[in-house]
Order: sequence, then structure tokens, then C-alpha cells
Amino acid sequence: MKLHGYFRSSAAYRVRIALNLKGLSAEHVPHHLRKGEQCAPAYLAINPQGLVPTLENDAGAILTQSLAIIEWLDETHPEPPLVPKDPLRRAKVRAFAMALACDTHPVQNTKVLARLRQLGLPEEKVTDWAAWANREGLAACETLIGGEAGPFCFGDKPTMADLCLVPQLANARRFGVDVSIYPRLLKAEAAAKAIKAFSDAAPDKQPDAE
Amino acid sequence: MKLHGYFRSSAAYRVRIALNLKGLSAEHVPHHLRKGEQCAPAYLAINPQGLVPTLENDAGAILTQSLAIIEWLDETHPEPPLVPKDPLRRAKVRAFAMALACDTHPVQNTKVLARLRQLGLPEEKVTDWAAWANREGLAACETLIGGEAGPFCFGDKPTMADLCLVPQLANARRFGVDVSIYPRLLKAEAAAKAIKAFSDAAPDKQPDAE
Repeated sequence: MKLHGYFRSSAAYRVRIALNLKGLSAEHVPHHLRKGEQCAPAYLAINPQGLVPTLENDAGAILTQSLAIIEWLDETHPEPPLVPKDPLRRAKVRAFAMALACDTHPVQNTKVLARLRQLGLPEEKVTDWAAWANREGLAACETLIGGEAGPFCFGDKPTMADLCLVPQLANARRFGVDVSIYPRLLKAEAAAKAIKAFSDAAPDKQPDAE
Repeated sequence: MKLHGYFRSSAAYRVRIALNLKGLSAEHVPHHLRKGEQCAPAYLAINPQGLVPTLENDAGAILTQSLAIIEWLDETHPEPPLVPKDPLRRAKVRAFAMALACDTHPVQNTKVLARLRQLGLPEEKVTDWAAWANREGLAACETLIGGEAGPFCFGDKPTMADLCLVPQLANARRFGVDVSIYPRLLKAEAAAKAIKAFSDAAPDKQPDAE
């Protein structure tokens, strides 16, 4: 398999963790987002959104959207499961993941921040925007799992929720968000980071890290 | 069941279509987004993101995030299926749905547009922003299903992809986007709109429509 990504992309980071947890290897193909490499015609031909990640499976099929890729990995390589079996628990895990993958990350991704700069917003306000998006998402997530014992987001094993949380917390810190006010999220992050599959997927461990 | 929504919310619209296709009824509880009713403490207690929709099932369980709700409905009420059985086809349907539900709609939702206004952006620029987000998403989606015969997004029956497409096209038009340049999307929309489950879910058919 080939994973098209970027060391700092939190969406690619989610898929790297999933591959590691499943014990799968993929050739990493970096696309430098800040340099606009994701908009090269050859890449747009496989991912018309011009976003990372994209997974090419062993049969050459193209998969886009990190959560769709993770669900596909979970369906085709069931162990260890990344989504629980019970429908209501599945819905809770997915809702948490989507609170970050739909309503948080896309509002602060490279493309949106570039658009804000085009509108003439000074860098400080651009960072404020990204920090705001992270605080909104993380505060809601802290509440969503407030009643969950953990230590992971949902139970004693990592799920797709943790795969979204760890990269999002990294983004939040990068934008100067004080994450100490989310103790339940930090508890889940600590449990996740103790696992090699998570630590090996970290941005600074990737070959294209700067 | 109770569906907390708003007539114009495209995320709530997706779930209304799903309920109709499954032949399920739910009490509709409107929350006026423009008046900020989704930020009332009683609503935040069930949806800490302050977003619609939220589904309360018959057992009183709370489900948030439209795609997580739709997947739950599909798992607990399998007919007619809204996601195909084949893993790769499931991934394609989910990726299309997420191109809209993650990267398009949240970038142009009420909350984000309100934030742009707070930054001092004139109304014309706010509308430009929303139109841009819609064009980016719809153009990618047009390519994603360019090789699909249809008439729906994926095959001859509606899937979760169509549930996301129809509301997003409505948003795009509201923001002045010329959608005639997306003929494949319009073909899927026409097929969908011919189905009562879709037309009954339209914003102007809802009790809280203005």
C-alpha cells in the first residue's frame, strides 16, 4: 500500500496510527502542503480535493478521506477493532471522531488558513482563528467523554476517537491553545502515547519532518 | 424518537432524508440557529457542540453528528441500505459524504460565518467565503463520481452520498453558486428529488420553515 500524506497533516497522522495498530505497512509518499504539492495535477488525479491523506491499496484502488480509510482498514483488517461492535457505542465513537474530523480540523486546515490570509487577515488573527476552532472542538469532546472511565476516549482500548484526538491535540498546542483545561482528553492522550503505534506515527518521526 | 434540528440545517436535512427512506418517524424539535437557540444550556446538555442535528432514540439515548446518526440508523434498520456492503464501495460512499460533511459544510456553517462577521468581514465577503467552500467541495465531488453511471451518486439507489449531496446543493444555490457546471451531481440530485423521502425532507416542507 501507499499512503500519500504530509508529516504535519493531522488527517494523515490518524491513518498512520491506524496502519500501525493493524500491523500494516505502507510506503509513505509525502506531499508538502505548505509548498502546494497537493495541488499538482498528478496528485489531483487521485485526490480531486487536493487534500491528504490518500491510500492506494495493494490492488491499486484509491481511498480518500481519513475516516473512510480508517473504517475500510477496520472492515478489511478487523483486529484490533477501531470501532466497537455495539451500534450505539459505534455511534458515540464516530460522533466524537467527527466532532474533530468534521467540525474542528477542516475549519483550521492549511487551505482555510491560507484563505484567511488572502482576505488580508494578519498572522496573529489567523492563529487566533485556528486556536478558536480547536478550543470549540476540544471543549465539546471533553464533555462528550466526561462520563467515560477510560483511560482511552471510549474504554480500555484505543478507538477511532483516539486516532482523531491525539493529532488534534498536537494541532491545538501548535496554535497556542492551553489544553490543560481538558483533563479527560489529556488522560486519553497519555494512554495513547504510551502505545508504540501512536508514538511511531507522530509527525516528528516521519521521513519528511522538518 | 426525537430529531433536534432546524429547517435550513443541511446536516439535519441529511438525517430527515435517512429517516424517511427507512420509513421511521421522529418528533421534530426545532432550534432556531440564527437566534442562537442551539446554545441554550438545555440543548448544550445533550449536544455539547451546540450543533444540530441530535437524535434521541426511543430508549432515550443521545446521538450526535449527522453521519454517525445515519450509520447508526443503517445498522439498526438495515432496509433499504444507505451504505453498500462491499468494503471498497463503502469507502467510496463515505469519502464522498465526508468531502461534503467534513470539508465543505463545516467551513460554511452558521458558526463559521458568524465568526467571519465578528472579524469585520462585510456581508458580501462572507457570502463569497461560503460560495468558495461550496465550489471547492462540489467540484471535487463531481470528479469523484465522474466514472459512476448512476443515476444516483453510486449506483441505482440512493446512498449516504446522496443524503449529503442534495442538502449541499441547496446551500450552494443559496450562496449564489452556479451549480450548472456540475452535471453529474445534478443528475444524482434529479434522481433523488424524484423520491418522496427526499422531497418530504426539504427545508421548505418543515414546520419551522420561514
